[in-house]
Amino acid sequence: MLTYSLDDRPGEALYARLYDRVKADILAGRLTAGERLPSKRALAAQLSISTMTVEAAYGQLADEGYIQPRPRSGYFVSPIAAPLSPAPAPPEPEAPAAPAAPAWFADFAESAAVAEDFPFSVWAKIYRETLASRAEALLTRAPAAGVPELRQAIAGHLWSFRGLSVSPDQIVIGPGAEYLYSLLVRLFGTKGIFGLEDPGYDKIGKVYAACGAKCAWLPLDESGVQPAAIRRRRAAIVHISPSHHFPTGIIMPVSRRYELLAWAGEAPGRYLIEDDYDSEFRLTGRPIPTLFGIDTGGRVIYLNTFSRSLAATVRLSYMVLPPALLRDFRDRLGFFSSAVSNFEQYPLAEFIRQGHFEKHINRMRTKYRKRRSRLLTAIRQSPLGKKAQIIEAGSGLHFLLRFLTVRSDDALVERFRRQELNLVPLARYYHGQPPLSAAHTFLINYAAIKSGIIEEAVRRLAACLKP
Amino acid sequence: MLTYSLDDRPGEALYARLYDRVKADILAGRLTAGERLPSKRALAAQLSISTMTVEAAYGQLADEGYIQPRPRSGYFVSPIAAPLSPAPAPPEPEAPAAPAAPAWFADFAESAAVAEDFPFSVWAKIYRETLASRAEALLTRAPAAGVPELRQAIAGHLWSFRGLSVSPDQIVIGPGAEYLYSLLVRLFGTKGIFGLEDPGYDKIGKVYAACGAKCAWLPLDESGVQPAAIRRRRAAIVHISPSHHFPTGIIMPVSRRYELLAWAGEAPGRYLIEDDYDSEFRLTGRPIPTLFGIDTGGRVIYLNTFSRSLAATVRLSYMVLPPALLRDFRDRLGFFSSAVSNFEQYPLAEFIRQGHFEKHINRMRTKYRKRRSRLLTAIRQSPLGKKAQIIEAGSGLHFLLRFLTVRSDDALVERFRRQELNLVPLARYYHGQPPLSAAHTFLINYAAIKSGIIEEAVRRLAACLKP
Repeated sequence: MLTYSLDDRPGEALYARLYDRVKADILAGRLTAGERLPSKRALAAQLSISTMTVEAAYGQLADEGYIQPRPRSGYFVSPIAAPLSPAPAPPEPEAPAAPAAPAWFADFAESAAVAEDFPFSVWAKIYRETLASRAEALLTRAPAAGVPELRQAIAGHLWSFRGLSVSPDQIVIGPGAEYLYSLLVRLFGTKGIFGLEDPGYDKIGKVYAACGAKCAWLPLDESGVQPAAIRRRRAAIVHISPSHHFPTGIIMPVSRRYELLAWAGEAPGRYLIEDDYDSEFRLTGRPIPTLFGIDTGGRVIYLNTFSRSLAATVRLSYMVLPPALLRDFRDRLGFFSSAVSNFEQYPLAEFIRQGHFEKHINRMRTKYRKRRSRLLTAIRQSPLGKKAQIIEAGSGLHFLLRFLTVRSDDALVERFRRQELNLVPLARYYHGQPPLSAAHTFLINYAAIKSGIIEEAVRRLAACLKP
Repeated sequence: MLTYSLDDRPGEALYARLYDRVKADILAGRLTAGERLPSKRALAAQLSISTMTVEAAYGQLADEGYIQPRPRSGYFVSPIAAPLSPAPAPPEPEAPAAPAAPAWFADFAESAAVAEDFPFSVWAKIYRETLASRAEALLTRAPAAGVPELRQAIAGHLWSFRGLSVSPDQIVIGPGAEYLYSLLVRLFGTKGIFGLEDPGYDKIGKVYAACGAKCAWLPLDESGVQPAAIRRRRAAIVHISPSHHFPTGIIMPVSRRYELLAWAGEAPGRYLIEDDYDSEFRLTGRPIPTLFGIDTGGRVIYLNTFSRSLAATVRLSYMVLPPALLRDFRDRLGFFSSAVSNFEQYPLAEFIRQGHFEKHINRMRTKYRKRRSRLLTAIRQSPLGKKAQIIEAGSGLHFLLRFLTVRSDDALVERFRRQELNLVPLARYYHGQPPLSAAHTFLINYAAIKSGIIEEAVRRLAACLKP
């Protein structure tokens, strides 16, 4: 007969404790395969607990397969072989190396939204509703390009927000822009050269290169990438951010856009990848129209992400393929599984469909506009006002600050670091030798700067500029 | 002088209407390159609107490059080589093509769990708690390999369930096994040959090939992949499923495992990828020990997924890298963003940590055991009992059924289809010419077969075998 003293453990049901003890005895071999357990009534009397408690414990053990009921005979221990040999030592309770992020007072290198800005309560509500109402859909495999509802919702958003007329069929959803870059390398192959903006977001080239693509860096003039440079470097696929170049902030004028479209149309296999990463956050005036929207030749791939507009950690991006590439995608990559969980695609589709996404963007634009204005005012009113030049085009969530100083960028970075300020020099975004004009110039991302610390952050910045 | 009647369009600002009209005039050539626009004040007076409205419209046109400001002279039309084509029409409200899945009565080709088996209520509770308590963590970027908490939870699971002693640092999380295959191609490069099981799961080779890897198909004997075949085909990386080969069900004996490890140890750069895709569901006897666990040379990559054990649509898989590859991963691919949403990684970590994952697996094992037993009984008791041979190794969520018939596989598939049964012939999983012994043999996946229809499905199967 089993004798357990079922000590009180707060927050755990009595039956669960009994279940734990019997399970441990089975796993340790103290109860052996085929052995009959005491009847529920007998064990209940023995332990002075109710028969229902024993029944619940036995039921759980049977559900999980530790014991088996036999009709009219009771419960019997299942054959469960414990490890034969002395098992290897249990792993040290070793925590993975923590991400070694220094605790900055103000991190002007971070572009991600902060927790206080994420629409947690609406998201929780929609998630709960989706689990309750879409059980079948959540467990049904999605096509390679993503679930139809989300593609439909994104097409609607692109029409109302970007004036883009696209079919949901043209939309391909992926877990982050990096994943979509890798799909594009698979689609175009590794023979053609990928042209990248120089300066530019360094990760783009790293991803293309890691996927096996050949890259060429293309110098910019004040209108962006130059068609002559594309021709000289023989690039076939050119990745650009015409609405708001990172990091310089250049908005590509419409004349240059038509020059690039003309280049693409001159030979088969030429494409432009339009990376529209933060177009939602042009804070003055209307959004800059897309290159995709004026392309009549089917040579532009439009790419955008929810990293800036929702959260960098949700891993949701999408691209819009022109019809010819769409056929190629289906034929050659259509067998892939969608790499984004249905448990995120369906809630996001509802979030957009119910208008929450638009509301969220509008709220964030207002917040960011205030934050930017407060930051610009603080800079202009501080001693920095005379020691720094603000370079911005009224677009996106960053601008440039050029310090009037003779100190090197490295010396400045070190001074900033001592004040717990993280700033990245513009020069670091050049693949080739940065021009002299890039010196003393730093990126100011302000999306992740909490409003309350702006003045103090500027005071510290100014202190770094003192002789 | 420009004269526009700026008709009322609800929901659109006055300046936006003025912008539209001027832009249309420029694109249509009614305003030509170099032409000076009226001053803000003059145009405002002309149209009876405020100067600020004109200023906003001119500002937007200048930002987009349609006009250029010249100091103290006003705004001038930019030279734009635009094609004179009409703007594209607004989109047809066209729904994406619905996934053309026929409604099968019983789909024996589907391995995914069904909605009734997913632990919705526990998942909803944990998700809600995570949103409420981990706001900061949810919005903090994860390392390339995934969030530390989930890697810690998986390491604990591997210890208690597979007896594997691994550091959380060795674990890399990705959105599905396919993504991890592509990471492995990036890690190993495309020079070495990837060896694949023949027969095998066809998607594995398709993914490797789409990522640019060279593939060689390796014939099996009754113990699995033969080292002689690996040598003959000069494969460097060999992808296998030793615990339960798909589709034949072969369990690789320990002698063959040591032969493969010996092969890997003979030269640098040789690796074995152990795909442990459904080891949780060996339904009789204890789990088959892993190849990773007996490897002392650091030549095995262990790979597993939550596709079978939770849901195919959550897109969560992981691999365990040996230390040498781990360094390589960090150095060369560590800059990637984790491709799995924090909003799935943190809830899953809690789900495992609180013991729900183990309970869910145990519950599903019991369910699947009953389902399998009911299916096998139904087959044995039906006329099929004498017309089909059951081939299974007591492992995993599928077995093989060999029909005693002279009909071709294609003819059988067609007969099944008419009965709304989806079955895939074993022969289709061969890359090369299938052997005669593979004929008349079909895969029976039963994870997605609802218990209530088993007898009727078997009756229909038997009907297809009638002369």
